Amino acid sequence: MVDYNLIFKSAIDRLHEEGRYRVFIDILRNKGGFPNARCFAGHNGPKPITVWCSNDYLAMGQHPKVIAAMEEALHDVGAGSGGTRNIGGNTHYHIDLEAELADLHGKEGALLFTSGYVSNEATLATLGKLLPGCIIFSDELNHASMIAGIRNSGCEKRVWRHNDLEHLEELLKESDPETPKLIAFESVYSMDGDIAPLHAICDLADQYGALTYLDEVHAVGMYGPRGGGISERDDAAGRLTIIEGTLGKAFGVMGGYIAADQTIIDCIRSYAPGFIFTTSLSPVLVAGVLASVRHLKQSGEEREAQQAAAATLKRLMAEAGLPVMPSVSHIVPLMVGCPVKAKKISDILLAEYGVYVQPINFPTVPRGSERLRFTPGPAHSEAMMQELVAALAEIWDRLEMRAAA
Amino acid sequence: MVDYNLIFKSAIDRLHEEGRYRVFIDILRNKGGFPNARCFAGHNGPKPITVWCSNDYLAMGQHPKVIAAMEEALHDVGAGSGGTRNIGGNTHYHIDLEAELADLHGKEGALLFTSGYVSNEATLATLGKLLPGCIIFSDELNHASMIAGIRNSGCEKRVWRHNDLEHLEELLKESDPETPKLIAFESVYSMDGDIAPLHAICDLADQYGALTYLDEVHAVGMYGPRGGGISERDDAAGRLTIIEGTLGKAFGVMGGYIAADQTIIDCIRSYAPGFIFTTSLSPVLVAGVLASVRHLKQSGEEREAQQAAAATLKRLMAEAGLPVMPSVSHIVPLMVGCPVKAKKISDILLAEYGVYVQPINFPTVPRGSERLRFTPGPAHSEAMMQELVAALAEIWDRLEMRAAA
Repeated sequence: MVDYNLIFKSAIDRLHEEGRYRVFIDILRNKGGFPNARCFAGHNGPKPITVWCSNDYLAMGQHPKVIAAMEEALHDVGAGSGGTRNIGGNTHYHIDLEAELADLHGKEGALLFTSGYVSNEATLATLGKLLPGCIIFSDELNHASMIAGIRNSGCEKRVWRHNDLEHLEELLKESDPETPKLIAFESVYSMDGDIAPLHAICDLADQYGALTYLDEVHAVGMYGPRGGGISERDDAAGRLTIIEGTLGKAFGVMGGYIAADQTIIDCIRSYAPGFIFTTSLSPVLVAGVLASVRHLKQSGEEREAQQAAAATLKRLMAEAGLPVMPSVSHIVPLMVGCPVKAKKISDILLAEYGVYVQPINFPTVPRGSERLRFTPGPAHSEAMMQELVAALAEIWDRLEMRAAA
Repeated sequence: MVDYNLIFKSAIDRLHEEGRYRVFIDILRNKGGFPNARCFAGHNGPKPITVWCSNDYLAMGQHPKVIAAMEEALHDVGAGSGGTRNIGGNTHYHIDLEAELADLHGKEGALLFTSGYVSNEATLATLGKLLPGCIIFSDELNHASMIAGIRNSGCEKRVWRHNDLEHLEELLKESDPETPKLIAFESVYSMDGDIAPLHAICDLADQYGALTYLDEVHAVGMYGPRGGGISERDDAAGRLTIIEGTLGKAFGVMGGYIAADQTIIDCIRSYAPGFIFTTSLSPVLVAGVLASVRHLKQSGEEREAQQAAAATLKRLMAEAGLPVMPSVSHIVPLMVGCPVKAKKISDILLAEYGVYVQPINFPTVPRGSERLRFTPGPAHSEAMMQELVAALAEIWDRLEMRAAA
């Protein structure tokens, strides 16, 4: 007989040995007071902390309009949708939000999923199955959910070096012109904070007859005059076949979506198991997102405050001689280069300074590039940033991590 | 160059030709008034309807305790979690709910997912990858999400005829005793309403050294003295390796989970991409589910009312000579056997009688077994059922569907 317990235990042991066993920190955010929160680690009751690693980038999860819309929906229709989109779970809120998101990206239609992960997985897997013999060209830093979708599509996959157009063209050139092709990539890469050259990629797609799939989860709400993402900022939305986004980061709630031509939306809606066979998003969430998207279409204030906060934090870190990475976006990554040290810095920050920032280890980033990743936003004041940078500088000294330079 | 539009259009045309193109009905439920709802189809404004096909089986999505808990969380912590479980999105609510669900099934631990679909897909795919050479034995009527997980595990799959123990044993017997094995099945099958023989399957698992994975999504909350599902009702929970459930049906909100030994929970938590790389459930949803699970652990009233409603509706249908299928659960399927007729009956019910019940077509059920599926619950009165059955009888006569007998 098989010793299952031994197999499972050794899978866990491997993580401990590599210093990348994850312990989830136990917190509650303070509504209205974000980035302030309470931490329940240890046995001394909740302790106040400042959150520096939330993907609620614009603090919209705390916005009065979002809270009010969710409360109204809760009292109007109740807690859940009660079914799949096809069987009882298609509410008027869902239809309104899809129209709002289609408009945001200038597309004919949009389709909601229970998460950004599911939207990527289900759409890419289904596209690949609908296009006979399709080859998917995937940026090497694409998110795990895109990788899962590409694998589950059963298509041939060609990985191009991150944002390397020459390499992408080389791979496209090798392929039969009559074979369906799909180029899958992100706009803002969430761990380095760099941004893809959308028009140049679309040029190649046009030249070699490929469809394009752009993941904008770390950009929607935050870039472009109405929050349509990098594709809106760069005026490239019309050139992209499918734009994918999330409702759980800048929009502050939960869920994912795609926007595209109506025929493609109809295909994914009709063929993707991950869309068809699942209870639809709670109307309470959908109502909150509707308020959030509508607000961010009108208001640039949050976007400007976020960009200002990111610029300030990068400057303060650089001035303090900390190894801040060269991000061109709102993401502020600080290189550590070792999983054990990254965890140790994070532990000291939480225990001694009430600062919560999660260490980012493999497989989220490549081994040897372990880091801390800060996401300052409109609610992080300059005083908070100065305190943070002073704490980091003290720890960098304490752990003797200053570069010899 | 490839004509992508032609490929997508013909995929949609195939659905129209087979009469299974889906049109989502546009509704809003009336909180407190469920199963009453409003339908937005057509252009004459919202029209009152009665929902007969919701999976909010016990109307918990409308329960005052659930609504109050969600409202409190909304005002305490805000709309979304702001991150993955590992990076900022692990709230105290999540930890409490996992403890509550582990207790519900008498297991050491539990793990939340964004949906039941994701819990099945992520867990089965990851289990299969952790167990070298594993063979997965899958009931032929398993849900699409289990099938996706099994396929994505890369394991060898052996499909056993639905609830056929002899066939299962035959397949187990053929396999090397030293090969890891997993038997995956459901308790209540949602489209036929029949129930698996849990102990007999566990006997075979013991005999042949297999792990067991039980999907209880159509049973949790509804069976067993505390709502622990068929595995609680039959006193079999301790014999099952993993029990999977949903938070979006009887518990009335949204999300999914597994319960198992701590080592297995830790493995899935640490290795499943569908768990790791996704924004965690909104704390608002989690707070609502906590209230729902706690209520249904204490109260048997909703379960008794649901069983009584199902028994009454089955009796009324049988008395009216309607082809109600022999379900032993709360699910009341009415056989039609043709996708076009099933859609037509559903359309007449909605347009003329204000009754909403979705036709169930392929691939949700096998071709030739298309049906209407009713889910009466505590909020459906006997008067509503009498009206429903009178309407069905009239339509059955009108469409000349009475059997020659």
